[in-house]
Amino acid sequence: MAGTNHRRPAVTGGPAIILVEPQLGENIGTTARAMLNCGLDDLRLVRPRDGWPSDKAIAAASGADTVLQKARLYPSVATAITGLIHVYAATTRDRGMVRREVTPRHAAAEMRAWLASGEACGVLIGPERTGLVNDDVALADTVLTVPLNPAFSSLNLAQAVLIIGYEWFVSGAAAPPEILHRGGSRRASKQELLNFFNHLEEELEENGFLRNRDSRPSMVRNLRSLFQRAQCTEQELRTLHGVITSFAGQRERRPRTKTFDSLRSLKPGKMLGLVDRADDE
Amino acid sequence: MAGTNHRRPAVTGGPAIILVEPQLGENIGTTARAMLNCGLDDLRLVRPRDGWPSDKAIAAASGADTVLQKARLYPSVATAITGLIHVYAATTRDRGMVRREVTPRHAAAEMRAWLASGEACGVLIGPERTGLVNDDVALADTVLTVPLNPAFSSLNLAQAVLIIGYEWFVSGAAAPPEILHRGGSRRASKQELLNFFNHLEEELEENGFLRNRDSRPSMVRNLRSLFQRAQCTEQELRTLHGVITSFAGQRERRPRTKTFDSLRSLKPGKMLGLVDRADDE
Repeated sequence: MAGTNHRRPAVTGGPAIILVEPQLGENIGTTARAMLNCGLDDLRLVRPRDGWPSDKAIAAASGADTVLQKARLYPSVATAITGLIHVYAATTRDRGMVRREVTPRHAAAEMRAWLASGEACGVLIGPERTGLVNDDVALADTVLTVPLNPAFSSLNLAQAVLIIGYEWFVSGAAAPPEILHRGGSRRASKQELLNFFNHLEEELEENGFLRNRDSRPSMVRNLRSLFQRAQCTEQELRTLHGVITSFAGQRERRPRTKTFDSLRSLKPGKMLGLVDRADDE
Repeated sequence: MAGTNHRRPAVTGGPAIILVEPQLGENIGTTARAMLNCGLDDLRLVRPRDGWPSDKAIAAASGADTVLQKARLYPSVATAITGLIHVYAATTRDRGMVRREVTPRHAAAEMRAWLASGEACGVLIGPERTGLVNDDVALADTVLTVPLNPAFSSLNLAQAVLIIGYEWFVSGAAAPPEILHRGGSRRASKQELLNFFNHLEEELEENGFLRNRDSRPSMVRNLRSLFQRAQCTEQELRTLHGVITSFAGQRERRPRTKTFDSLRSLKPGKMLGLVDRADDE
């Protein structure tokens, strides 16, 4: 998905991501990218196998260089977690240890609260092939496990960090679950919608579509319901006015009003796809 | 994170993932892996740039071959969405179109409900460099946008699919937000805990740590509170009994009970890290 907006300030802060003995520079780079995606910038590296700094990491970071430049190198997990108050170990289920285990969502909510009160947090992530050893897990308060397909739950470093970071980001984002973009227009007022109903129904009256007096009330209700549900913008209603007028213009014109021609020769309900059943004329 | 469990059945089903003109075979492979991580297996490819099938896709799928083998090829977005009822377009914010936009979490909840009532769903994902074109977005009901750092929101294909799929998976998973692993032991009963309190306090009484009658009640309460909070297992309590006995064994022994030696020469509160303030003897 394209879409980085360089005009908006980067969101940074949040828990430290601590990669323990990462093997490939590429994975450190993609981890840095995933971190910046999620507004994280405290990357700590414990004994990266292929050394540090890493050109491969920079190439793979796709522009998240700031995270790599700030990354700090440590000789051990114990030194990397110095200064933290809460440490999670990202790992898969049950190691036979007595250990609290949480989901990324729960961890995110906890970390929000802790960081807000000044208590630094971090997440340990083990080497690509093996994951964390039990002695590293024992240095963490809590195991963090991503709920995934139990038959295929292996994630690479960057993907594990992306999910943990994503939950961190959305736990603090005020993004509403659903919004309606209006493309620069505004939502139509009820008066504008009623004007449109009047136009549509007047034309359908004129062309005989609503001639059946018994079915007419429910037909009108159904049409109105559809256009209510569409949450039209003011611009869209103007377009719809034009559509009706254009249908009317195709038929033999007989002057009735300046704007609204009659639609006698068409089956507009069918053409507009508004009704299941269109009367034949 | 290592941890695929081949003994457990794969979770499959869920919405179709429709890659529109994906450029790199590798990205199709990593997308398949992310799909299987999340229990998704309906992959649809619209005009993959480098052809299909793809050895690079297989190499990058890290074992998610089943998803690649089932993948279907389509000449257009329109043909790829045939048979679907609900289509999301994964894209970044506002294209100047009038369009409903939802988060991955909201989409997951919607799709759960729709799929449960037999209404097939799919998600369109555009090419790596450009994302979906507006004409493709116009074929979708709804825009699906991953909330991310607005200054750095670009995701690769597999990562976009991973987050969408992760939300899908967790929306149907009964994973509790927090569990406590017990390493094969069971949670200690209150009787066992009280026995431990008795042992500890008896020794602390014996060695003089609790000799201050004024502070004793709160000291005992604080110690008990700490061990309550630790939610000890039966095995751990046995270990703690042993720890106390071992402290007692370091001192000049004087026979008192068979199991519990006295702790007169130590400051056990300090040594065990149990209290903030240890009395000097």
